[in-house]
Amino acid sequence: MTTKRFRPSALAGATALALALGLAAPAEAQTLEELGAENAALARELESLAEQVRELQTQMARNQQAIEGAKNESPVEFDPKKLKVTSKDGNFEFQLGGRLQVDAAYYDDDLTDLGSGAELRRARLFMQGRLYRDWVFKNQIDFADNGVSVKDAYLQYSALKPVKITVGNHKEPFSLEALTSSKYATFMERGLPNAFAPDRALGLSASTGADNYSAALGVFSDGLDSGETNDSGFGVTGRLTFAPWAEETRALHLGLAGSYRSNVDGGTIQFRAQPESHVTGVRLVDTGAMTGVDDFWRLGPELALVYDSFSLQGEYFYTGVNRGMDALGNSFRNPSFDGWYVYLSWFLTGEARNYSASKGTFGRTKATDAFEVALRYSTIDLNDEEVRGGEEDNFTVALNYYFNPQVRWMLNYVHAEVDQDGAGADEDANIVQTRLAIDF
Amino acid sequence: MTTKRFRPSALAGATALALALGLAAPAEAQTLEELGAENAALARELESLAEQVRELQTQMARNQQAIEGAKNESPVEFDPKKLKVTSKDGNFEFQLGGRLQVDAAYYDDDLTDLGSGAELRRARLFMQGRLYRDWVFKNQIDFADNGVSVKDAYLQYSALKPVKITVGNHKEPFSLEALTSSKYATFMERGLPNAFAPDRALGLSASTGADNYSAALGVFSDGLDSGETNDSGFGVTGRLTFAPWAEETRALHLGLAGSYRSNVDGGTIQFRAQPESHVTGVRLVDTGAMTGVDDFWRLGPELALVYDSFSLQGEYFYTGVNRGMDALGNSFRNPSFDGWYVYLSWFLTGEARNYSASKGTFGRTKATDAFEVALRYSTIDLNDEEVRGGEEDNFTVALNYYFNPQVRWMLNYVHAEVDQDGAGADEDANIVQTRLAIDF
Amino acid sequence: MTTKRFRPSALAGATALALALGLAAPAEAQTLEELGAENAALARELESLAEQVRELQTQMARNQQAIEGAKNESPVEFDPKKLKVTSKDGNFEFQLGGRLQVDAAYYDDDLTDLGSGAELRRARLFMQGRLYRDWVFKNQIDFADNGVSVKDAYLQYSALKPVKITVGNHKEPFSLEALTSSKYATFMERGLPNAFAPDRALGLSASTGADNYSAALGVFSDGLDSGETNDSGFGVTGRLTFAPWAEETRALHLGLAGSYRSNVDGGTIQFRAQPESHVTGVRLVDTGAMTGVDDFWRLGPELALVYDSFSLQGEYFYTGVNRGMDALGNSFRNPSFDGWYVYLSWFLTGEARNYSASKGTFGRTKATDAFEVALRYSTIDLNDEEVRGGEEDNFTVALNYYFNPQVRWMLNYVHAEVDQDGAGADEDANIVQTRLAIDF
Repeated sequence: MTTKRFRPSALAGATALALALGLAAPAEAQTLEELGAENAALARELESLAEQVRELQTQMARNQQAIEGAKNESPVEFDPKKLKVTSKDGNFEFQLGGRLQVDAAYYDDDLTDLGSGAELRRARLFMQGRLYRDWVFKNQIDFADNGVSVKDAYLQYSALKPVKITVGNHKEPFSLEALTSSKYATFMERGLPNAFAPDRALGLSASTGADNYSAALGVFSDGLDSGETNDSGFGVTGRLTFAPWAEETRALHLGLAGSYRSNVDGGTIQFRAQPESHVTGVRLVDTGAMTGVDDFWRLGPELALVYDSFSLQGEYFYTGVNRGMDALGNSFRNPSFDGWYVYLSWFLTGEARNYSASKGTFGRTKATDAFEVALRYSTIDLNDEEVRGGEEDNFTVALNYYFNPQVRWMLNYVHAEVDQDGAGADEDANIVQTRLAIDF
Repeated sequence: MTTKRFRPSALAGATALALALGLAAPAEAQTLEELGAENAALARELESLAEQVRELQTQMARNQQAIEGAKNESPVEFDPKKLKVTSKDGNFEFQLGGRLQVDAAYYDDDLTDLGSGAELRRARLFMQGRLYRDWVFKNQIDFADNGVSVKDAYLQYSALKPVKITVGNHKEPFSLEALTSSKYATFMERGLPNAFAPDRALGLSASTGADNYSAALGVFSDGLDSGETNDSGFGVTGRLTFAPWAEETRALHLGLAGSYRSNVDGGTIQFRAQPESHVTGVRLVDTGAMTGVDDFWRLGPELALVYDSFSLQGEYFYTGVNRGMDALGNSFRNPSFDGWYVYLSWFLTGEARNYSASKGTFGRTKATDAFEVALRYSTIDLNDEEVRGGEEDNFTVALNYYFNPQVRWMLNYVHAEVDQDGAGADEDANIVQTRLAIDF
Repeated sequence: MTTKRFRPSALAGATALALALGLAAPAEAQTLEELGAENAALARELESLAEQVRELQTQMARNQQAIEGAKNESPVEFDPKKLKVTSKDGNFEFQLGGRLQVDAAYYDDDLTDLGSGAELRRARLFMQGRLYRDWVFKNQIDFADNGVSVKDAYLQYSALKPVKITVGNHKEPFSLEALTSSKYATFMERGLPNAFAPDRALGLSASTGADNYSAALGVFSDGLDSGETNDSGFGVTGRLTFAPWAEETRALHLGLAGSYRSNVDGGTIQFRAQPESHVTGVRLVDTGAMTGVDDFWRLGPELALVYDSFSLQGEYFYTGVNRGMDALGNSFRNPSFDGWYVYLSWFLTGEARNYSASKGTFGRTKATDAFEVALRYSTIDLNDEEVRGGEEDNFTVALNYYFNPQVRWMLNYVHAEVDQDGAGADEDANIVQTRLAIDF
């Protein structure tokens, strides 16, 4: 819209003239004729001024339309801290981002070589957004190790409030630590029993949540790959969390998740764990491929407490495996495995971990120039029946420095004790590892 | 630009005072002196008011500049439905986007195991845009199956209107169904004879089009990979389409494409087709690697009719292969293969398929809460001379629901009949498959 | 903020009426009563007009707030030529982009088959930006060859001005040609001795620079891959450049870089060079895997001169390898290798290469419709002690056409002479290659 340019009129001179007339006279008495003429001049001036005011009013109305127009001209709003665009009506959103995590680790290893060095732990890019109010999408890819790992790649239908339906690759709802993003994790790596958590899979789930609870249930296929000739296995995974206490900086989280999985990858499954360090590719505990597996199920109770700058978190994982006979006719007993961890975090600078009761997970702690220290004990036992996967106990001390809410430096010391590892011998390892992480 | 803050003046009080003088008097006759003094007061008021009006005018002019300035300050325009930025002069554009397609399939298979399950069919991200008015670019990557598949990755020179020159990875101009994006396809997978269509290749092409025709011709190399020690083969592919009838919702499309390809990959080529289902990796018809191939050529006549909510589409594919002698000295006769499909689509809710005569392809049907049903018959024959690739006939029933122009749910039932497959036996398969698709 | 809609008032009518009164009278003498009544009417009009002006003033103040508000409402600024968003305070930036380079090459080869054809040389996408003023990030991936190659993937801390700390995957500071982006390179491929330059690695570096110098020093690990069981090797690489003459279009660049690398990949390294052409995967000179390497060091003096449209550039590379004994007990003498190149570039259309003294590299020549011709001689010698990698001398003639600052067409003729290649025989090759390149 173009607006006519408004020019201050030439009234000023005429007014001055007319007023000179009025102002020159008051000291002396005037005749009726003079007064009449003055009145006429005043009236003309008034008329002229009224015309100016009318023009101003008209122009003012135009300007206001232009101002309104300028506001409506940009149909989108921006968030300057992340590249996020939102339509004024909120029906459309588009956001870009990613994360980078650069790690280095030194291993004081024992019997097994762990390979000190550095790695690009995560290098992700994503696009996400909302279309036609009800449809959310996300496509996030990790390029670490010069490969592709499709992470969140889903559509979400959000019109059945408060329930959301998610279709595509997303995390099975199991384990507080697994469901909390690596961007917000207290330690560089998740605890040993994360080996039992199902991570992301292609599936369909329904989830909901409110001020003090969350619930999710889904069915999931094997993985992302097509091209199989065997029928895919499938899993059913559900999780319920309850927060009897959910204040701004104080919360109590109780959770329970369960997962059943049938007919997996030709009957073979494997559980194994890295020593809470990822620069090395080595796993010190590993069941190896267990054949003849019909199905298996998992159970995971969760507990977390946030009390201002302190927080406590712990989870137990139980996995029961139903084995029958493998392709060679060997029959097996049904092993079960378990593990648990507990950790304590303390923000020296007073911040609190950011618990979301409606999701049952932790989100971003918006901390700047903040220090956090944390201690974790975790354990996993992969020995049962014929399976001798080993047992491992880890003690970790962590120090995190938050440069700002999106940049964090992490330092972890891990002492790992492996009893009866794959090779049958006990060993210890001391690990010092560090990470610089950004998400954008 | 900062504008001086304008403050309503203190005139209000003075005016009230002066007017009180005037308004108090009218009931009684006044002396000449009184009237003269009144006139002088009125004149002063008038002067003061005129001064206010002049200030308003000046400020009004400033505001209008500020309003104009605010408009010009943003040199770009946004499309809120996709993340698209366009410079005001139209010379620069930048757009981001992608697509996600989540599939599941159940196979009632026969002799050959097909492997029911789910897959992330497509997971793409792209950047595209325009630079310096004449140069268009696009870089689109598919990450499905945790791999990289470079899709459109080209530069396009658009200054030689109406001809566009495209350089890089793009679709060879062959087959209406192949050239129509999977975003707009009627069925989940293209028909069986799509096995003969050349898809994308690195090359250079010229294309043009107008209200009732399109034409494209290009030369193409083997593929994207470098590092070969053999000279690359090359192909020449061209397509001409004509629309004697091209109205908004009614159109008749006639097309003919041809392709010649020489000296391919060390003389080996292979034609094979999945059973119009991609969750399985199995092909029920497959020529196997044909060695000693000097060159081969393809021909593809096309026909399509849109009549409001009904549309009909069909294509025939002929492929002739010139074989000489392979590296082991075996000599072969020259086989030829063919296939065709025909399908009918009906939008129950009245929408029409969106035909573009200037491209000779179908685009997005901008449908919301719309139902489409479709039937397809397709056939491919890969038996000729020494080659026994098998013959397959597929009958497909499709139901599509359009949540909105960018989100679509698809359900397909495919009945596949294979005569004389690779193993020499006949077999049938019944396939139920579904997709949830979004593009952004 | 919403603003009350302002409506021109009904004053106009009343004013006209009152003025008619005043204007009708002046010709005749009036009574005191009439004049008094007139004055009263004038006063009422004046009051009414003053009220209008007050309203205008109030509204004007509101409008100005709205205008200011409209300006502040958009907290970001856009660059229309690339998708770049910057917050008003400059503390946050987000930029997207990439590059496409499409190559074709014809090889008139000799003894070794080189494989004429085409390739997508580079197909990159990136996100980069700035967070909380001090933190810069970049994540750039190359998808050429349908693979993933993580390029720049780093965080940069920029608060310790003028020093920048970079952590992640980035180029080791070595070699003017290696550090100058392929977007700005004079020739399609870097010279033969680029085989000695270390390229990108995961590491931590400090860099600085000013009007006439640049300096960088870093420590770097082996590569991007994790999962090794061997301890990673590490390198220390530094570079110092000085520009005694650094004007807009005239500059003299002197540089020296050194790199020490220890304990590499299980003691094995390899130097080899493609014939300044990348469509072929063949290397005509190649040391093969040298085993038993303890460490090696590199030295690279650099020289460049820009004199308006002319420029001269040359570098020498020396590499000394310390070999001990390999795993099989073979012991070796310590070989050393070297190479150098020199080239001359001339912009026929008068532009100058864009030297940045503070980085010690060349940046974008902002040329439109410009021609550049260039000549290069380069040589590499991979024969020493037990190693017979061959020796190669290349002569290259280049012609570049700049459509605009971001789109460039390149044509190279390379004559390669190989003395004593891997197979012990001499051979020549003539290469004609071309590229169309865009960056966005």
